[in-house]
Amino acid sequence: MILTVTLNAALDVTYHVDALVPRASHRVGESFSRAGGKGVNVARVLSTLGVPAVVTGLVGGPTGRAIRDDLRVAELTDELVPMAGDSRRTVTVVSREDGDATVFNQCGPHVDTAVWTTFVARFTRLLRGAQVVVLSGSLPPGVPADAYARLTRLADDAGAMTVVDAGGPTLLKALGAHPTVVKPNAAELTEATGHDDAATAARSLRELGAGSVVASRGPDGLLAVTPEGTWRATPPRRLAGNPTGAGDACVAAIAAGLLAAEPWPAVLREAVALSAAAVVCPLAGDIDAGLYHQFRTSVPVERTHAPVDH
Amino acid sequence: MILTVTLNAALDVTYHVDALVPRASHRVGESFSRAGGKGVNVARVLSTLGVPAVVTGLVGGPTGRAIRDDLRVAELTDELVPMAGDSRRTVTVVSREDGDATVFNQCGPHVDTAVWTTFVARFTRLLRGAQVVVLSGSLPPGVPADAYARLTRLADDAGAMTVVDAGGPTLLKALGAHPTVVKPNAAELTEATGHDDAATAARSLRELGAGSVVASRGPDGLLAVTPEGTWRATPPRRLAGNPTGAGDACVAAIAAGLLAAEPWPAVLREAVALSAAAVVCPLAGDIDAGLYHQFRTSVPVERTHAPVDH
Repeated sequence: MILTVTLNAALDVTYHVDALVPRASHRVGESFSRAGGKGVNVARVLSTLGVPAVVTGLVGGPTGRAIRDDLRVAELTDELVPMAGDSRRTVTVVSREDGDATVFNQCGPHVDTAVWTTFVARFTRLLRGAQVVVLSGSLPPGVPADAYARLTRLADDAGAMTVVDAGGPTLLKALGAHPTVVKPNAAELTEATGHDDAATAARSLRELGAGSVVASRGPDGLLAVTPEGTWRATPPRRLAGNPTGAGDACVAAIAAGLLAAEPWPAVLREAVALSAAAVVCPLAGDIDAGLYHQFRTSVPVERTHAPVDH
Repeated sequence: MILTVTLNAALDVTYHVDALVPRASHRVGESFSRAGGKGVNVARVLSTLGVPAVVTGLVGGPTGRAIRDDLRVAELTDELVPMAGDSRRTVTVVSREDGDATVFNQCGPHVDTAVWTTFVARFTRLLRGAQVVVLSGSLPPGVPADAYARLTRLADDAGAMTVVDAGGPTLLKALGAHPTVVKPNAAELTEATGHDDAATAARSLRELGAGSVVASRGPDGLLAVTPEGTWRATPPRRLAGNPTGAGDACVAAIAAGLLAAEPWPAVLREAVALSAAAVVCPLAGDIDAGLYHQFRTSVPVERTHAPVDH
C-alpha cells in the first residue's frame, strides 16, 4: 500500500468567470469543489491506476467535512486526522475567454502540538501496512519545520520507502533523514541549491542526503540522478496546462514504481506519460487515459552518465 | 421592528494578497469571513444604530452554518429558513499594493418550491412584529421572479411598510405591488427605465408603482422623488470606497426613518451621513462612527420641486 500524507489538505474550488478583470465585480457562473492538496491528488492518480493508496494528513471544520465527503465520493481510503480550525481552500478562477487560471491559496489554520502528536501516532500505525510513503506539499503553520525529516525517519524505521515533494526549507530539512526519492521542480531545485544547472543541483541534493533526485522540468521532462545512474526522459510532444496536476501525477508514478520495484527507465517513462496525461486536465489528480496509453510506450529515456558512486 | 430579507444570504470572504496578477498563483496571507448579503448588512447597520432588526431569508449547508454562527457573534436575531444545498460565498480579493478589491459572487444554490413555501409562511409570521420590511439584493435560482412583489403585498396586508433594494427585472416586478420606497442606484435606475436623467427615471418608477424613489448616485448623493416632494442630499465631502456598504447603509437609514416616521429631509440627511460613514469601511455593514456623527449635522438637503401629485 502507498500512504500519501497531506498535512495541508484543501478544498480545491474552481470558479468560472467570463474574464478576470482586476478591480471588477464578477458573477461566478459555475463553481466546482473537490478534495485537494498534493498528497490527495497523488492518491487520486494511484487509485485511477488501480494501485492501493491511503490518504492521511490533517483536516478540520466544515471545509474539512467537505474534503472528507469528497474523498468518500472518490472512494479513496480516508485516514485523515481531525484538527481544530477550518481546513484551507484554494480558489482557482478560470476565465472562459482564454481558459487561463488564476489561483488563490490560503495557508491553512494553525496546528497545535497535541494534534501533531496525534497525527504522528496515526502515521506510525498506518506505516504497518505501507511499503511506500509520499510526503507532499507545504506544511501548515504550527507543524515542526522538520516534519518531513521526522516522518521519513519513522517510515525508514518501519521499512517503508519515501518520496518527498516539497520546496524550500521543508525540502532541505527532509534531506537529513535520507528520503528514498525527492522530486523538486526546476524552481525548487535552484532555490534549494543555488545551482541553475539541473544536473549539478540534483547531485548536490544527493550529497545532502537524498537517495535519488527526480527533477521535473515542465515540457523538458524529467532528469533523474540515482545510485543506479542518471537519465533524462522527455515527453514526445510539448503539452502545456496544469503544472500542479503534472507534478502530482509524476510523484504517483514514482511511488508506484518503487512499490513494484521497477527499474528507473520504466519508472521515468511512466512518470513522463502520466505527467503529460495530467497536464492537459484542468483538475489536479485527473489524467487523460487516451494520452497516457499513447505516451507510455513512446517516451524516450536516455542514459546520460555512468552510475554515480555512493 | 425592522425585518430584513436576504434570500441570497452569503458568507463574505475577504482574501488579502500582495497584488492581484491574472494567471499567477497567489499566497493568501490572511482571510476573513462573515455573514453577508445586502439584508444582513442592513440589519448590521440598524443594530449599530440601536434599531431592533430581525434577519430572515434562506441558508443551507456548511456555509449556511458559518453564516448563522457569525450572526450569533454579531448578536443579530436569526430567523433564517434552512434550504437544501450550500449557501453561496462571495470572495473579495484585496490587494495590499493599492487596496483595490476584486469581487467574485457565486449565484447561490437552487431553491425548491417547498422551501419557498416554508419561507413565505415564516415571513408571514414574522410580519406580526414588523413595522418595516427591507427586501434587499438578488434572488437565488428557483425563487419566483416576482418574489419581492409577493412579499410586498403580504407586508402591505399586514400593515408594514416596505423598502426594496434590487435591480433589473426583480425591481420592475416589485413595482406592481406598490412598495413604500425603492432605492435603485444610478445604473439600476437607467437599466430599469431607459432614462439617463435620474429625476426623469425616478418619476417613471413612481408611475410604475413605487411610493417613493430614493436614487443613490455615489459621491453625488441621493435624489428622492416622493409624494411629499423632491429633494437632493449631497455629502459635504467626496469619499470613495465600498459602494455595497454605502448602499446598504442608505437602506438602513431609510428603513429607520420610516419606522420613526421622520420627515424626508431628516431621513435623507441621515442616509447620506450613514452612506458616507460606510463607504470608507472595507466591510459592508460597518460604519465609521466618527464620520457618521460629523456628517449627520452637515449634509445639505435641497428641495428641488413642489410636491408631486398622486
